[in-house]
Amino acid sequence: MKSREIQLVRRPTGLPQPDDFKIVEVELPDLGDGEVLVQNVSLTVDPYMRGRMIDRRSYVPGFQLNETLTGGAIGKVVESRHSSYREGDFVESHLGWREGYVSSERGLRKLGELQAPASAYLGVLGMPGMTAYVGLLDVGELKEGETVFVSGAAGAVGSAVGQIAKIKNCTAVGSAGSVEKVKHLVEDLGFDHAFDYHDGHLERQILAGAPQGIDVYFDNVGGDHLQAALNCMRPNGRLPLCGAISQYNATEAVPGPNNLAIAIGSQLTLKGFIVSNYNQRREDFMKDMTEWVVSGRLKYRETVFEGIESMPEAFIGLFTGANTGKMIVNLT
Amino acid sequence: MKSREIQLVRRPTGLPQPDDFKIVEVELPDLGDGEVLVQNVSLTVDPYMRGRMIDRRSYVPGFQLNETLTGGAIGKVVESRHSSYREGDFVESHLGWREGYVSSERGLRKLGELQAPASAYLGVLGMPGMTAYVGLLDVGELKEGETVFVSGAAGAVGSAVGQIAKIKNCTAVGSAGSVEKVKHLVEDLGFDHAFDYHDGHLERQILAGAPQGIDVYFDNVGGDHLQAALNCMRPNGRLPLCGAISQYNATEAVPGPNNLAIAIGSQLTLKGFIVSNYNQRREDFMKDMTEWVVSGRLKYRETVFEGIESMPEAFIGLFTGANTGKMIVNLT
Repeated sequence: MKSREIQLVRRPTGLPQPDDFKIVEVELPDLGDGEVLVQNVSLTVDPYMRGRMIDRRSYVPGFQLNETLTGGAIGKVVESRHSSYREGDFVESHLGWREGYVSSERGLRKLGELQAPASAYLGVLGMPGMTAYVGLLDVGELKEGETVFVSGAAGAVGSAVGQIAKIKNCTAVGSAGSVEKVKHLVEDLGFDHAFDYHDGHLERQILAGAPQGIDVYFDNVGGDHLQAALNCMRPNGRLPLCGAISQYNATEAVPGPNNLAIAIGSQLTLKGFIVSNYNQRREDFMKDMTEWVVSGRLKYRETVFEGIESMPEAFIGLFTGANTGKMIVNLT
Repeated sequence: MKSREIQLVRRPTGLPQPDDFKIVEVELPDLGDGEVLVQNVSLTVDPYMRGRMIDRRSYVPGFQLNETLTGGAIGKVVESRHSSYREGDFVESHLGWREGYVSSERGLRKLGELQAPASAYLGVLGMPGMTAYVGLLDVGELKEGETVFVSGAAGAVGSAVGQIAKIKNCTAVGSAGSVEKVKHLVEDLGFDHAFDYHDGHLERQILAGAPQGIDVYFDNVGGDHLQAALNCMRPNGRLPLCGAISQYNATEAVPGPNNLAIAIGSQLTLKGFIVSNYNQRREDFMKDMTEWVVSGRLKYRETVFEGIESMPEAFIGLFTGANTGKMIVNLT
């Protein structure tokens, strides 16, 4: 069997370009004992991958040029020489941007019976959903009745953050990048207030939805949003720092918030986190989130591209506002 | 009895000027039942007072123009009509910039038998000492063997931070504003490494004393120091935000650290705090700190001005590097 795969051939400067990537076709090896052949059905592109395209020391090693990019994928076993895997089993891997692969059980997670479409396990029931869950409840220490502001609220993480806040009887305010997304947040997802950040006046917009101020600011974007949120924080507020998408493509250092000293008098806590360090909460997350998704209390939307060749476009779209909810690439 | 007092007559723009203050003489009232007459012996000026000179919403209300400034003071009871206070008792008040006052017991704290000079109760055994103690141990969650970097290390708070770190078997690195202060930190106070921030290359200087990086950055100054420290933090590092003296006199907003996104991948916690919210730790602090001071394990230095009329000069000196250790005004 052949697999088409996406490789990074040039490190992006600023916004990634299609030419930074190339598609290659490889012949998959024959199965050895204990190995399975998997055909991917759903692939994910995520903002954090942009950081890995830079050649620098970080919490995860950078991508190498001319090697196939890695990342979350849901696939189906099509041939098995491993006693625990049968043809038709769904598996999650982190092998990423390829149509298929041969693997031992190392690095595979069996998904068991799916309770939602396969792609949901890359989004609301996967890494982005768990990021929202631990970021809000553990890092943000959300308490009943508090007010949450989340930026990038129409994204995979942000939309889950706002809805978890509502499930926890909190007020949810969100910012997004278009009128349609704002409408979606309020009408479909139950946010109490949402606004288009292109309209400016971030601080005034936040306070319109949170006149008493914010207890938790879930930061997906950094930059202006963080500065505005700092001005709106209530005493003892918490700011889980999850992403800085506004800066991922910056070619020069971006000035930070000029009002960080507010954190002193208001006793604010800014806390960066990476979801992989909260694996002890995985079981709670899967239990709660599956229940919320299956019961319809927590909704999710996907922006779907088709075919392995569309992965660069889908990835670039993360930074141009092309997605509402999780960005997914399905293979047929 | 008459008392000379210092009032704020103009809100400072940038660095405070002597003309922002005036000295007035008031006649103290006769003692009523339950009241005491106190003559101050030692007064404090502290950087946080600069913030209260601005007319804005904050965690403590601003100073009013043409009223006597308030702040910590140690005084001696010279006349008492209260059964619990006797002539000669030392008391701590927050009534501040005045030679004497008449007060009920409300707002007074009896110091009991002094175990150190009166002025120490404004410094190492007072608010700055307790700020260092809870900031490092509670907010900073310092653990044995870790590495601490503190800015403003020759100040009242900073010099205690470094020495507490050493007592807790940690490595202490500090920055200060002159060659003499740097010498004092290393030779007298036992810092492992110290440097003059005027030499620039903050990051390189920090790493010279902490080649493996910093676990706790105790931030007294904000600005460039915070940005450099962020680049030197080890994973899971903590940054107690205590002060931003570099910005207190700024007339325009100062850009914040351009590298705050580092906090995400390295899982850093930046936590602002104000010492008055840690009163539950007061007893531990007094016990530990008194023991360390009396035994000579923790040293302190004072920069002393004489006479109530010198208070504005002493206060302004906080921002021009005039003090090593606690800035004190003694009355004779």
